[in-house]
Amino acid sequence: MTDADEPSNRIVFGVRPVDELVRARPREVSVIYVAEGTRSPEVERVVQTAKERGVTVEIRARRLVAEMAGDAVHQGLVAVTGRFRYVTIDDILGAATQANEPPLVVLLDGITDPHNLGAIIRSAEVLGAHGVVIPAKGAAPVTAGAVKASAGATERVRIAEVNNLMRIIDYLRERGLTVLAAGAGDGERLDRLDLVGPVGLVVGSEGKGTREAVARRCSGRFHIPQRGTVSSLNASVAAAIALYEVARQRQRG
Amino acid sequence: MTDADEPSNRIVFGVRPVDELVRARPREVSVIYVAEGTRSPEVERVVQTAKERGVTVEIRARRLVAEMAGDAVHQGLVAVTGRFRYVTIDDILGAATQANEPPLVVLLDGITDPHNLGAIIRSAEVLGAHGVVIPAKGAAPVTAGAVKASAGATERVRIAEVNNLMRIIDYLRERGLTVLAAGAGDGERLDRLDLVGPVGLVVGSEGKGTREAVARRCSGRFHIPQRGTVSSLNASVAAAIALYEVARQRQRG
Repeated sequence: MTDADEPSNRIVFGVRPVDELVRARPREVSVIYVAEGTRSPEVERVVQTAKERGVTVEIRARRLVAEMAGDAVHQGLVAVTGRFRYVTIDDILGAATQANEPPLVVLLDGITDPHNLGAIIRSAEVLGAHGVVIPAKGAAPVTAGAVKASAGATERVRIAEVNNLMRIIDYLRERGLTVLAAGAGDGERLDRLDLVGPVGLVVGSEGKGTREAVARRCSGRFHIPQRGTVSSLNASVAAAIALYEVARQRQRG
Repeated sequence: MTDADEPSNRIVFGVRPVDELVRARPREVSVIYVAEGTRSPEVERVVQTAKERGVTVEIRARRLVAEMAGDAVHQGLVAVTGRFRYVTIDDILGAATQANEPPLVVLLDGITDPHNLGAIIRSAEVLGAHGVVIPAKGAAPVTAGAVKASAGATERVRIAEVNNLMRIIDYLRERGLTVLAAGAGDGERLDRLDLVGPVGLVVGSEGKGTREAVARRCSGRFHIPQRGTVSSLNASVAAAIALYEVARQRQRG
């Protein structure tokens, strides 16, 4: 990811660039966003072309489209394209340093559903995580589906793809982070933990939760108090609640 | 909804009843759940029949299937069928009284996406809400899609369908509930509110939020502290965080 203030190379905006992209390489386009309230025959023509070529087109708030285009002239049209550009774990930690905040990192263990991945990335952005770590194997990469489900947040959140999640946990702990694994019923109750300092949150797949070997590598475990006797929280909901709790503790007062 | 300990009429379980249902009225079946680890040629035949008739079949934890069948002999197979049986607002309040707990009610304003509806119902069940109120018009009813997205929680959560959301808000306030409307940036910060007493939480649609006329009818407004400059939380995530905050305050100590 480049500087957060600059549009990434993955974003193409404006009627003509998007039109050319959609005609030349429609398969590389994850999604096209049209700014709400855009009334332009040119934009409508591009949207028509895109739909004919099987590209997803969605309406989004004008300020979102403007931000994605780095506040350049976008004519109400942006496209997300190309391969996803992952960052390194040091980029994520660096972002926290730059913001003068204790790092807050989300680590995903075996989230295979792109919808869940996108939802977690969206919550990570809104609730102030510095980055998300996803394993290169056995997990959903940032596909077009995840980009869509994230409501565009994939373009604004730092995401690192790593070969060995456990080594990254070790590394984060060496760097002073308390790394906590989510597990239903196991470990300390979320709100009883001190989450004001540097924190990594490991969220496992639905049903299975964090893998035991991964959880053992962490500093500890946490659970979200639950009442229902049978079902459990969706993985993306559990991640959002944990992120909220961190934000709550950090902004207390 | 009948007594929560009894399987509702909507649940059909066991190989033969489910087989008959799938052959006779496949269109009325929302979803079939097969208990994890079920190895039975009879079950496999029913699953095959169901799939041929376009019925969704999913694997679920054995204890979920058992609970849905009211712990009767289910042979690893339950079907959710028929029209959804809504309860009244008094049923929801009565459930709180019976549990000797201050009521916790979720009210949805214009949630049109069945996936979001199902996700909210799932979180409501897990995080201990006594019921969910959905408007009869301009909102998603409990369809097969919502049943699926809720992971079966629609069968365990009390859901009232109401003609006039504002009158229900008035009614709940008369009954002593503090009814709070979610709105990005507006109102008090969620964690600064006292949510230990009887509470109603109004969650609006994505993008639009709670309608102004609805919010004005409430006791107050709340917001979840957000960092992202552009996007906002998904409606189902916002609902889950609010429910978590209530649970956290009620279980504090």
